[in-house]
Amino acid sequence: MQIPYVIFNGTLIPENEAKLGITDLAVVRGYGIFDYFKSVQGKPIFIEDNIDRFYHSARLMDLPVNYSRLELKKMIDQLMQANNMPDSGIKILLTGGYSSDGYTITEPNLIISQHPITRDNTTEEQGIKLLPFEYHRPFSQAKSIDYVMGIQALKVAKKEGANDVIYVQNGLISECPRANFFLISSEGKLLTADDDVLQGITRMKILELAKEKIEVEIRDITLEDLKNAREAFISSTTKNITPVTAVLGYKDFGPGAGMVTRRLQQLLEELIYNS
Amino acid sequence: MQIPYVIFNGTLIPENEAKLGITDLAVVRGYGIFDYFKSVQGKPIFIEDNIDRFYHSARLMDLPVNYSRLELKKMIDQLMQANNMPDSGIKILLTGGYSSDGYTITEPNLIISQHPITRDNTTEEQGIKLLPFEYHRPFSQAKSIDYVMGIQALKVAKKEGANDVIYVQNGLISECPRANFFLISSEGKLLTADDDVLQGITRMKILELAKEKIEVEIRDITLEDLKNAREAFISSTTKNITPVTAVLGYKDFGPGAGMVTRRLQQLLEELIYNS
Repeated sequence: MQIPYVIFNGTLIPENEAKLGITDLAVVRGYGIFDYFKSVQGKPIFIEDNIDRFYHSARLMDLPVNYSRLELKKMIDQLMQANNMPDSGIKILLTGGYSSDGYTITEPNLIISQHPITRDNTTEEQGIKLLPFEYHRPFSQAKSIDYVMGIQALKVAKKEGANDVIYVQNGLISECPRANFFLISSEGKLLTADDDVLQGITRMKILELAKEKIEVEIRDITLEDLKNAREAFISSTTKNITPVTAVLGYKDFGPGAGMVTRRLQQLLEELIYNS
Repeated sequence: MQIPYVIFNGTLIPENEAKLGITDLAVVRGYGIFDYFKSVQGKPIFIEDNIDRFYHSARLMDLPVNYSRLELKKMIDQLMQANNMPDSGIKILLTGGYSSDGYTITEPNLIISQHPITRDNTTEEQGIKLLPFEYHRPFSQAKSIDYVMGIQALKVAKKEGANDVIYVQNGLISECPRANFFLISSEGKLLTADDDVLQGITRMKILELAKEKIEVEIRDITLEDLKNAREAFISSTTKNITPVTAVLGYKDFGPGAGMVTRRLQQLLEELIYNS
């Protein structure tokens, strides 16, 4: 495969030439934030929302962004032209910078990278199984690079025959490591966790689409809600809306997507892929 | 200042030439572990214990270490000779490796680095103030590079006039972001949290030294224990035993080190600096 280009602190270079000094706080303290969106047939999807969130995450984690919105968009555009990769995931990563004391935030390094993505239509149709996992992400609103728990949890999920985990703490269901979680309640309402989860862009779009069709409740989601629910699904940039067929030990929804999930999939499809 | 050498995947190079590719899991997911010990007058302190813990952390986080104990020690020795830095901190860092999918652990990168440290005798004498902070480190036994909370919490501590935070969750006091925490109870016992905290090497040495002198209890530490305590201190490789003069909002111990703390400082001093 051809090596893609990246933009490293404003300069377009091949990815294998982009290297970070070992004193960066990302390397020594896992300190950084990122955002991630996709391009479909060469068109960036929801890029304005992702840039909004990128600045928001940076602010929450005290990382200065020394680029204007316009500069960021110009760099993304330059990268997309150089790579000529129509269906891709694009990541904007901002690190804590080179720190002489190994703890204090300095001038961040900015890396914009792009990789091809292939949509997993089969899983979007057939759904996935989730394993409940006792955890709650700190700084849940910032899209930090901290995925230690997510990586460890995935291993546990696979061992138990699940595709991934769903974080649960004190009886409340929050989110998956890399996706938001939704339920269709017994009364047919769409439920999803409030502000103490990652504010997913796909989540936001789903809520906008859904509220014209059904009642939406954004609030704490309990295990009781799960047990009483008719349908469940997760959402993310790469997974779009993917049905949840079971939450191990709590609920078996049966194969494939439920009716409401299917309808939301169609609406999201139109918004992203047929627009 | 002269640029120190590091050992990067077995090769001695100047630190500013040691660079990590941007697809390493440390950069994209904050995934890695490390260990840290000091040299005093050219002699590495407790190196065997630190290497034990390094392998233990790596195992807990599923990172393969492709170097034997002997190889690690040879590299550390080579580094110390090259840098000629008698009083230093030495860090062994192991990353998640270059991951093509940005999530799966691969062949880790190993970086051994060394920086001068100056002992802060004034603070070891006068003590510090801690701010209680609601948190508990996940994977507390692994010395992971994940310090997002520690860096954020330090900012909050400084704003409140404290030197650092002490993590408290569900009424239990666990540890500081970079140090273990001890109390001297009203009955004169030494108390410290059990296995759900970082297993500090200095902590271990203090427990060994103390148990010949006073009763030691290794168990959950409550806010009630704090309120009733006579003395408190923290321990780490760089801070040795540093007295805690106050935990804001809960307890004021008054300036300097208490009698038991002072005695333990002397014992540790003999073990580390006068041996």
